[in-house]
Order: sequence, then C-alpha cells, then structure tokens
Amino acid sequence: AVKTSTAPSKPTAMAPAKLRELARGVFGKYPTAASLTPTDDPTFAAKVALGRQLYFDTRLSKNHDLSCATCHDLQHFGVDARERDGQRTPTSMGHKGQLGGRNSPTSYNAMLHIAQFWDGRAADLSAQAKGPMLNPVEMAMPGDNVVVTTLRSIPGYSKAFKTAFPQDKDPITYQNTADAIAAFEKLLLTPSRFDEFLAGKDEALTANEQRGLQRFVEVGCMACHLGPALGGGMFQKLGLIKPYETKDLGRYELTKQDSDRYFFKVPSLRNIEQTGPYFHDGSIARLEQAVILMAEHQTASGKLDAEDLGYLVAFLKSLTGTPDAAYIHAPELPKSGPKTPPPDPS
Amino acid sequence: AVKTSTAPSKPTAMAPAKLRELARGVFGKYPTAASLTPTDDPTFAAKVALGRQLYFDTRLSKNHDLSCATCHDLQHFGVDARERDGQRTPTSMGHKGQLGGRNSPTSYNAMLHIAQFWDGRAADLSAQAKGPMLNPVEMAMPGDNVVVTTLRSIPGYSKAFKTAFPQDKDPITYQNTADAIAAFEKLLLTPSRFDEFLAGKDEALTANEQRGLQRFVEVGCMACHLGPALGGGMFQKLGLIKPYETKDLGRYELTKQDSDRYFFKVPSLRNIEQTGPYFHDGSIARLEQAVILMAEHQTASGKLDAEDLGYLVAFLKSLTGTPDAAYIHAPELPKSGPKTPPPDPS
Repeated sequence: AVKTSTAPSKPTAMAPAKLRELARGVFGKYPTAASLTPTDDPTFAAKVALGRQLYFDTRLSKNHDLSCATCHDLQHFGVDARERDGQRTPTSMGHKGQLGGRNSPTSYNAMLHIAQFWDGRAADLSAQAKGPMLNPVEMAMPGDNVVVTTLRSIPGYSKAFKTAFPQDKDPITYQNTADAIAAFEKLLLTPSRFDEFLAGKDEALTANEQRGLQRFVEVGCMACHLGPALGGGMFQKLGLIKPYETKDLGRYELTKQDSDRYFFKVPSLRNIEQTGPYFHDGSIARLEQAVILMAEHQTASGKLDAEDLGYLVAFLKSLTGTPDAAYIHAPELPKSGPKTPPPDPS
Repeated sequence: AVKTSTAPSKPTAMAPAKLRELARGVFGKYPTAASLTPTDDPTFAAKVALGRQLYFDTRLSKNHDLSCATCHDLQHFGVDARERDGQRTPTSMGHKGQLGGRNSPTSYNAMLHIAQFWDGRAADLSAQAKGPMLNPVEMAMPGDNVVVTTLRSIPGYSKAFKTAFPQDKDPITYQNTADAIAAFEKLLLTPSRFDEFLAGKDEALTANEQRGLQRFVEVGCMACHLGPALGGGMFQKLGLIKPYETKDLGRYELTKQDSDRYFFKVPSLRNIEQTGPYFHDGSIARLEQAVILMAEHQTASGKLDAEDLGYLVAFLKSLTGTPDAAYIHAPELPKSGPKTPPPDPS
C-alpha cells in the first residue's frame, strides 16, 4: 500500500444547513439595536443622543484635540486610522503626541465583551469610558472634577444632561458622563453577511467563506473566538501552545497572579479585516500574518497550509459588517460658554 | 495509489523533553504551600489553624450535622463521597436531606480558580465560604448573625480568633470566619506525578501517559483545561460544538445575558479520577464517559477512537495527587459553652 501524501486528509465540506446548525451553536444570535435597548429606561434615547455628543467632543481632553472618536473612529470601524509612512500605527497618540502602550480596540461590538480593555480592567462600557479621559498619556484631563467643570461651563449640555438623567438634581457628573457614552456605545453594531447566513440565507456566504467557517471550527479557532462577537468572552493566554514573544504580561500587570501571565482578552473578530493592525501591541500589520501566528501559537493545528489560510481569511472578511450611518454620524456640539477652560497644551 | 485507511494519520509521539517544553508553556508551574503563603501576614498560620477547625465544625450548620468537610471531604479529594446503591450521588445532601442543584466541586486547588462555584458567582475563596452556611438547602443557618452568635458562645474560639485577627477588637465576625476558612483552603494542594514530569523527570509518566498528554494538547482539551489547575481559569460553553442537553443554564442564571447560556466554569482536572461523578450536575459517573462526551460536545475532534480514549484517560489518572496528610487531618474542636445553640432539626 502506498500513500500519496503524508498530510492527514481534511474533513469534507459540510452542507450549508449542517454548517449553519453548527455555527448557530457556537456563535449564537447577533443582537439588534432593538434587542439591546432597555425597556425600563424611558430616557435611554436621550442618554444615547448625549453620549453621541460626548463621544465626539474634544473638550473632554486637556488640549481639546482628542475625543473618544479620535482613537475609536466610527467611520473606520471603531479603531485609530491614523497612518505613518503609509501604514497604520500600532498604538494611538494621546496628549502631546504620547503613544499608548496597547493597540486601541474597536468600540463597535464592545458591549458584547465580558469586560473592557485588553486586560479586562473595566467591568463594563461605563467603567471603560472613565479611563481615557483621565489617563495622562491619553486625553490627560487632570481630574474628573475638571471634566465636570468643563461640561457645566457649556450651556447646551445642561439641558441634555437634565433630559437624559431627569431624576438627578445635579445631573452633570462624571458617572453620568460615562453612562451616557456607554449608552451610545451600546448600540454600535455591525451586522454582516455572516449573520445573514446564520439567519438562513445560504448564498450570503460564498463556498470558500463557508469552507473557512468550517475550518474555523475544525482548526479550533472557535474555542476562544465564540459567541456573537466571535471573541470578547474570555481571557486566554497569548502563546498557549507555543510561547509568543512580547514584553506585555497582559492581565498579570493587573492581578500579579502568575497564572495570568500573557493572558489577554480574546478580541472580537467582527470587522477584523478593517481593524488592524493586530494583537494587543498592534505589531502585526496584515490579517494573513495574524491568522498564521494565531494558528501556530494558539492552536494544536500548528502551521496552516495555504489552502486553509485562504479559507480562513475569506471567512474572516465576511465578518465585515455595516454600521448604521445615521447612528454614527458626528453630531452638532453645544458651543462653549464664557467659563469653558481653553485648550491646555502643557 | 491505494490508501490503507480512511483515518487521518496522527502526529508521532514527541520526545519527553519536547513534550515537557510544550506542557510547561500550556500549564505553567504548580505552586507549593510555601509559594502560596503570604509573606506580609504574620498571623496567617493562626488563620489556617482556625480555618481548619471551622472547616470541620458542624456547629456552623443549623442541625449541627454538616460542615464544609461533609460535602468537600478532604480524605476523598475534596468532594462528597456519599454513596447510594453503591454509587456516588450526583449532588450533595443538605439540611433535612435536601439535595443541591449542582455537583459539589472539590476544595483542593480551588485557590487556582478564576472565581468560585460552577457559575463563578463568588470572586474568591472567602466569598465562596460565606455561601453554603446560609443557603437553606445546604447548612441552613438562618443568618450570619446566628453563625457569629454560635461561634462567640464557644469559649475556645475567642482565643483562636483573637490570635488569628489580632488587630480586631471583636474578631469573631462572619467576614473573619470566611477569611479563616479561605486561609486554610488556600494551601489545599495535591502535587502529582505530572508535576514531577514537568519538573524534569521523564519516568514520572509512563509512555502511555505521555502520549495522553500529547493527545490532550492535540485534540484541543488544553484550550480550556490550561494553567496549573488544568482548568478553573475561564468560563466556557457546555455544548460548544454540539449542543449538550441540560436544564441548567449556567452563568445565564446569574447574569441573564444570552451569551452566558450554558456557560460554566471549566473545572480543574487535577484528581479528576477521584472527583466524580462529573459535570455540573454530577450526571456522568465514569471518567471514560466524561472524556468521550467532552471530545464530542466541546472539541472539533468529535468522536474519539479507543486508542485516544485510552491515552487521554491514562494521562488524566496521572493527575491524581497526594494531599498533605498532616495538613488535612481533622483537628480537635473547642467545646460548646452553656449558651451554644442546640442542634435545630426543624
């Protein structure tokens, strides 16, 4: 008996219906804005409208040059699209051009994550929103009181906060600022062709993309990239199977637990084609390279062959979705008042 | 060309040194009691001694018939060894013979877990210890104040709490009770032959056990069962690849988030041979059956062949460790005082 090849044979392609059933089990159903809108908060829409303004307002930064949208650009799938020498930069530029330590993750679909930031140090969107404004290498506001003073000095915000938080006597607080931003971010969805496939439309994915979805499961990518965001649901070790060289110890920096060394939140793969550069440090520019490294360092499959790489990348590109253009449109911002602090470049 | 078999060929056996390198990356180093003992708490040993007494004290239950050790029996690898018709029962019996809803997990190595309970609803050992005493279907104490009153009525505990918590004016509190139990539990370790293998001793594992370790990685078990406890580090969906029938919705019951349906904490595999029955509901009696179901419902490998099943089970049995007999020995308990409440069978 003669073997023609030493490579183990791969499973044959599944029928779309069977693949769909498998995928539904792994990924569940992607939410809609309606399903995510709380039914017990009559002023949620007002919070969203206020949060949209705050998301775009550079007066929340010390030098009035940065807003949430600067590093989480909604026209560019929620990431920092700034380029240098024709390539996107690994990390973002904060106050006085200081560079952050980790790649800015997308704000789209973040509501589906188990926790926020690469290391999960904020439990939810609201807790996350409180971080960058006060981080000296990001928006660099000297204190939450200064954020509040600034917002109180802008006449138009008084009414917007009052409408969004009608129960509060003094509604302009740091907590409410974060809660409004979180309300806006909660509906930052990007439904994709993949969701149409899950809903029952075979032809929403090409044969190659379907094959990629199947290989995504078979290769073991889905052990971590599962759930409606294809990720975001757990922390995992970077270098699970084969050590990955990085100076960043991930969650260990936060917890000082040895077992947390190199653990990061598993990122969502929705819009992954558009949200590079990749990994916690933004060190990987090309999606193909990211997939090769993931297979090698994180899965028992090891090196991918060219065929599988093609299938997997085709599938991943099908996860690029469509933001709601009206929802993410930059709003008109209320004008500064006489007491609004000027930009501070120091 | 003729193929002799349709089964894909399996990777060949790795040399012990290479397998060790791989395993060290996946599992890290198992701690020692010395490494887990805090260096900044001069009364930690006193807390441990007190916690040991409390762990074994049935007066922490309403009818004085249950202690932590009843359902987490340290002579039986930290689980409930009660049998019925010659088989261990799926769940434990609490006050008045009431049955719990989930299988009692082992208290050994629980300090390595990301959170406590099957659904992670307690952040740490101390928070966990506060649960069962007050749970009406477990130890059924009517309130934390009754636990405190009971402990204060036992003369010998006054000195033990004072020694363990010297800064406190009234050291007998519910928090300190839980903290002492947690201190005792923190050192419940079970070093095994697997750890000797990781440390450099090839012959600590047989060839079959080594092959099982390799297959454990290749089949993908380690995507979830990683770290020094071989599990305990994340939540994962039961039925990840193929739905698993169970009424228990896992973390969903706690968070009411759709994406948490059927998510449970991944259990540790240390001492797994001895800690059956298996799964959150204790419904699976035999280890072989548990392994078959895990491969089928959780991994892309699907059905295991008999050879792989044998290897994997051999490896899992090598994880059975040795508790420190002196450490887990039932201590002498202080005698009740005149005001100690009597057992209450109601």
